[in-house]
Amino acid sequence: MSAIDPFHATRALFDLPDGLVYLDGNSLGALPKAVGPRVAEVIASEWGGQLIGAWNSAGWVDLPRRVGDRVGRLIGAPAGTVVMGDTLSIKVYQALASALELRPDRHVILSDTGNFPTDLYMAQGLIASLGRGHELRVVEPEAVEGAIDRSVAAVMLTQVDYRTGRLHDMAALTRRAHDVGALAIWDLAHSAGALPIDLLGADADFAVGCTYKYLNGGPGAPAFIYVAPRLADDARPALSGWFGHDSPFAFEPSYRPAAGVERMRVGTPPVVALAALDAALDVWEGIDMQALRARSIELGNLFIAEVHRSLSDLELASPEDASRRGSQVSFRHAEGYAVMQALIAEGVIGDYRAPDIIRFGFTPLYLGEDDVRRGAAILVDILSSGRWDRPEFRRRNKVT
Amino acid sequence: MSAIDPFHATRALFDLPDGLVYLDGNSLGALPKAVGPRVAEVIASEWGGQLIGAWNSAGWVDLPRRVGDRVGRLIGAPAGTVVMGDTLSIKVYQALASALELRPDRHVILSDTGNFPTDLYMAQGLIASLGRGHELRVVEPEAVEGAIDRSVAAVMLTQVDYRTGRLHDMAALTRRAHDVGALAIWDLAHSAGALPIDLLGADADFAVGCTYKYLNGGPGAPAFIYVAPRLADDARPALSGWFGHDSPFAFEPSYRPAAGVERMRVGTPPVVALAALDAALDVWEGIDMQALRARSIELGNLFIAEVHRSLSDLELASPEDASRRGSQVSFRHAEGYAVMQALIAEGVIGDYRAPDIIRFGFTPLYLGEDDVRRGAAILVDILSSGRWDRPEFRRRNKVT
Repeated sequence: MSAIDPFHATRALFDLPDGLVYLDGNSLGALPKAVGPRVAEVIASEWGGQLIGAWNSAGWVDLPRRVGDRVGRLIGAPAGTVVMGDTLSIKVYQALASALELRPDRHVILSDTGNFPTDLYMAQGLIASLGRGHELRVVEPEAVEGAIDRSVAAVMLTQVDYRTGRLHDMAALTRRAHDVGALAIWDLAHSAGALPIDLLGADADFAVGCTYKYLNGGPGAPAFIYVAPRLADDARPALSGWFGHDSPFAFEPSYRPAAGVERMRVGTPPVVALAALDAALDVWEGIDMQALRARSIELGNLFIAEVHRSLSDLELASPEDASRRGSQVSFRHAEGYAVMQALIAEGVIGDYRAPDIIRFGFTPLYLGEDDVRRGAAILVDILSSGRWDRPEFRRRNKVT
Repeated sequence: MSAIDPFHATRALFDLPDGLVYLDGNSLGALPKAVGPRVAEVIASEWGGQLIGAWNSAGWVDLPRRVGDRVGRLIGAPAGTVVMGDTLSIKVYQALASALELRPDRHVILSDTGNFPTDLYMAQGLIASLGRGHELRVVEPEAVEGAIDRSVAAVMLTQVDYRTGRLHDMAALTRRAHDVGALAIWDLAHSAGALPIDLLGADADFAVGCTYKYLNGGPGAPAFIYVAPRLADDARPALSGWFGHDSPFAFEPSYRPAAGVERMRVGTPPVVALAALDAALDVWEGIDMQALRARSIELGNLFIAEVHRSLSDLELASPEDASRRGSQVSFRHAEGYAVMQALIAEGVIGDYRAPDIIRFGFTPLYLGEDDVRRGAAILVDILSSGRWDRPEFRRRNKVT
């Protein structure tokens, strides 16, 4: 372990309840202190004070691009290649619909069982709409590379598996896709803000992601989409809304796409949510992503070591090799739901993913070694004592 | 005019800059005072204090339906038939894609030149994606009824014309559509909160709308979608995201639509924006929509009379008959852009719509007779004096 927490200073930028061990920043990031005041200002001074004029005077109209550039710096995307808006599901749809049109003679979308379900659902919906015999081919994560062949129009993968934390090799799989003429779409939901990403260097074609996890943008914060500059003027946005029009305020009868990635904007931007995200991104100023990754690995390894020191039988669902893992650690337990409820009741927040995963996220910006040791100790204690085995911990919540 | 403003009390529920005459609530509604505190609470106590647990403990997961029911009460939609989320553009796409699948043997989408461009753009995008020879047939508003024939799969109309304020007869056109086996999709962007709407009574098939105009939900506030109960279990959501799945947290590999309109949810709901809207809807509690409509007509008629008393030549772009008009009044002026900029500089906020429309919205909840008289007087004065004719008023803003 580092002698001194290199991210000690950033913890002060977050509001976290005293005594809580929050290991779920991979699901909903903690609240940056800058968000509340910034949102209050946007509501009172911009909306309340400038009203409709704020679209110009407060720069609302450019927020999706301006915030997109800030996200871009964290994922290896040059300025002008990322825009914000909608949800990850919608952005997946846009990327996939564009990709299929760019490969009209191919009919396979290749994905894996580690992809987040909404990506698969959106693909299924698109395929049903198109009605042209596209196939969603879903293989095991380890089988993806071998399954990329000349039938594949688009490889659609989440870089970090939401259950296990297994990390795909973005550069290698993108290269393999390009070698056979396929396009690569990367979902960065569990990568953006979790580890260094080099979209341009990996030559990714499309990337999408949400901002409410490691980027701390708030519940349901707007998503992002990246389109490779070499494709951005050719990709047709299936969801062709007025804010993706070249001249939205000319009110022309026919759609003409804006230049570049701006065409992937759809409707009126969610100003208040974008302002919250914009404020949340302040904590990332000056953060060295390599240092963050090193610290995330230290924390994750510490957690595994502390748990396995007492409970060597608890099955690690994540890769043991930290270089093959995102910023989360998962274990398998047949009664994972009840175990997680017991943990939450004792102030350690992780989450459960059906059928048997208990999941813990490591966010160096606001988590230290003490949190990790304490979380591990309580997990060990709960499992050793069996005190998870109570009816109240089996009662299912709507959201797990 | 009513002797006493029947909505005098509601004005106190809004924050409006002193001295401003805000006649643009049809574009961005004014700020309800309840919004700031409610959003601050959601950020600090729910996100900051309850973190991921707030999806259950603060009821975030049900916000799209709960807020949808509140909107539903204003548009004649029974509980459980409206959900919130995304933008109007996305909701138009969902409604239209579903409608086309429900009428697989027909290939015409009928709309009119008074529809808002994004509705037309989304239809164009969908048609291009489907590649099955659908046609977007756009006729003059007066020609819609005669153009509804057995080739039409869906009639897609905005009830109140964004430029002229002309009001379509929803019940009659829906009946006509049904008579020939077509479906009717209504965009209520300029109707919801502007006038009484009876979706169920009119037997509309789908309806969509935004909430940042008359409903005062804030810039880029979430949209809504209504699906007629008799269709809701048959409509396939082309945008099939995980929050529209029957069991989102089962993480099943295949999409299974939720029952009813909930299937039209797509991605993770925008919690902060929904909370702002939820607070904004408080001002609608107890409002009689018939009384609101009567007052809106009084204010609109007063504005027209005051303007025409001095400027009888200024061409009214809106129907003179208030029963055929929404809650806005528009005039035509070849230099409308500069005229509007001059008005704004003198504290009267309306907006301009290319090529020659100056547009004024009437929102009885926070506008009184004095505002209307003052706005009209300044418009008359600016036009009579010609002091709109200055270079600084011709300089184009990005957003008009």
